[in-house]
Amino acid sequence: MTTYSNTVRFAQTGDASVLQFVEEEVHQPGAGEVLIRVRAIGLNRAEIMMREGAYIEQPQLPSRLGYEAAGTVEAVGANVTGFQIGQRVSTVPAFSMSTHGVYGEYATVPAHAVAAAPENLSDQEATSVWMPMITAYGALVDIGQVSAGQTVVITAASSSVGVAAIQMAKMLGATVIATTRGPEKRAALLEAGADHVVETDNQSLTETVAQLTDGEGAHVIFDPIGGPILDDLAAIAAQGATIVEYGALDPRPTPYPLFAALQKGLKIIGYTLFEVTQDAEKLDVAKTFVLRGLQAGKLRPVIDKEFPFAEIQAAHRYMEAGQQVGKIVVTV
Amino acid sequence: MTTYSNTVRFAQTGDASVLQFVEEEVHQPGAGEVLIRVRAIGLNRAEIMMREGAYIEQPQLPSRLGYEAAGTVEAVGANVTGFQIGQRVSTVPAFSMSTHGVYGEYATVPAHAVAAAPENLSDQEATSVWMPMITAYGALVDIGQVSAGQTVVITAASSSVGVAAIQMAKMLGATVIATTRGPEKRAALLEAGADHVVETDNQSLTETVAQLTDGEGAHVIFDPIGGPILDDLAAIAAQGATIVEYGALDPRPTPYPLFAALQKGLKIIGYTLFEVTQDAEKLDVAKTFVLRGLQAGKLRPVIDKEFPFAEIQAAHRYMEAGQQVGKIVVTV
Repeated sequence: MTTYSNTVRFAQTGDASVLQFVEEEVHQPGAGEVLIRVRAIGLNRAEIMMREGAYIEQPQLPSRLGYEAAGTVEAVGANVTGFQIGQRVSTVPAFSMSTHGVYGEYATVPAHAVAAAPENLSDQEATSVWMPMITAYGALVDIGQVSAGQTVVITAASSSVGVAAIQMAKMLGATVIATTRGPEKRAALLEAGADHVVETDNQSLTETVAQLTDGEGAHVIFDPIGGPILDDLAAIAAQGATIVEYGALDPRPTPYPLFAALQKGLKIIGYTLFEVTQDAEKLDVAKTFVLRGLQAGKLRPVIDKEFPFAEIQAAHRYMEAGQQVGKIVVTV
Repeated sequence: MTTYSNTVRFAQTGDASVLQFVEEEVHQPGAGEVLIRVRAIGLNRAEIMMREGAYIEQPQLPSRLGYEAAGTVEAVGANVTGFQIGQRVSTVPAFSMSTHGVYGEYATVPAHAVAAAPENLSDQEATSVWMPMITAYGALVDIGQVSAGQTVVITAASSSVGVAAIQMAKMLGATVIATTRGPEKRAALLEAGADHVVETDNQSLTETVAQLTDGEGAHVIFDPIGGPILDDLAAIAAQGATIVEYGALDPRPTPYPLFAALQKGLKIIGYTLFEVTQDAEKLDVAKTFVLRGLQAGKLRPVIDKEFPFAEIQAAHRYMEAGQQVGKIVVTV
């Protein structure tokens, strides 16, 4: 019997309206692949950028979309071991969204991008774990080497990655300063664990961080914004600080703060989670770290809002409006 | 008997003509200081920037100037051990030029900034060792971790630091691509050890490096220029490459190559040799490395031209003209 999957594709780049449902025949997974019956999808800003044609991967049209799903194993291809049919799993972003995107009733992804769903989590929670927490792990642990007593600044902190980074920096013993534009998300960021919140529309980031750190500045800064803010981030950086850039939310050109970099010996490092997810050894260490944090209750997925699958366009528009704190999840 | 020292000071920032000779009484060195009878001075671009008021240290006018000198120990202050009167020494840049600058018949510097002159080197050679070679060491060994088989790009390679970096990268087993503007210095850079020379006025840096590395790009890039070239350096960088910025020769704004940084996981690191010279342990390791290279004949100071002390202004103008390959030395 042939199975069909309701799958989201876009035939042209553009706004949320380009996302269309297509009935597609479900094929058996190829060698090294796993077929997943999708129950929940976690949304990421990368998917908006991909949809707009502005992501580091160019879509092959008509393109699939989506990095994160949770569900059950439906079938495995040749040379795949370690999974059982019906097992609860979730995906780790380590594949092309064009060809393996998970927005669908079924998704086929490489086996190395499939992880057993963490215990005691719902499908909605399970799909909200890996992308945010592995992204935060690579930046704060691998690159930033955050240690107890340090100050970490997390900009645009209300995203799922930002919230995961707050939790992880606290788990590592750091003091966390989270930034957000207005007062709306202050309470949620404090709730997530931030020690201080700076409202960048209403407060001077440089003055506030100088005050909070007695002029020493921040040791690690984790920023998905880019653009002119990088000058301010260099100004609030401590001697020898690491600034991890992991996004380009601000479309304006980004200045390199050369003099501050020379004076302070700043390390400014471009980073995507693929550095972790495409390195099997690093990924294993990261997963272990995250699972330990989940078990200890130090890390916990934060879900902002759920949408039904039929409202995928509305879910994208909601993410673009930027009102969320934590993960936007689509239930299939 | 009071001793007087003919000393260079500048009472205002500006071009080479602000450098003036002043007869000053020589004081006994204070606690932790060493008084040196200067025989040779090595010039550095930092001194031009300081003279212009554009350096990371702001001059306290009337300001002394100069980081590098070789000579003999004339006197030591309290709490200074390990030096003998008359011993041949040279200085390591690890102090304020305003207060301790070495352009003079006598100079007083902190004892931690004084090293025994490497054996078998003349005063002119001894003053041409530490600044270039420790600068190159910190960037290529400490930060860049250059290893055999890697490709290293050294821009503006004809400076004393550039030449030292060429020698050191070869010593580490790397393939070295040196850049210079025109054809004038090609032969000297090949002589210094570069495997390839790119004339940036006549050749495309990006195309040439792509060709020379079969599209892989450079693993470590060592750049004192800054400004718009950083976009090109990001383009020629290999996946995961390190770009060490150690100067600001180009006064134009420096763009941060955000998308290349994200796609390639680039590390762009601001660096001055003070990171090494102000850390006693690092400095010891660096000195040992450099002395080993000198003894093995893998490192050797390259002197471009010598000037008498009275012609310090002419020496500065010559450096500003940028025709040198290696060190400009002033003999006192």
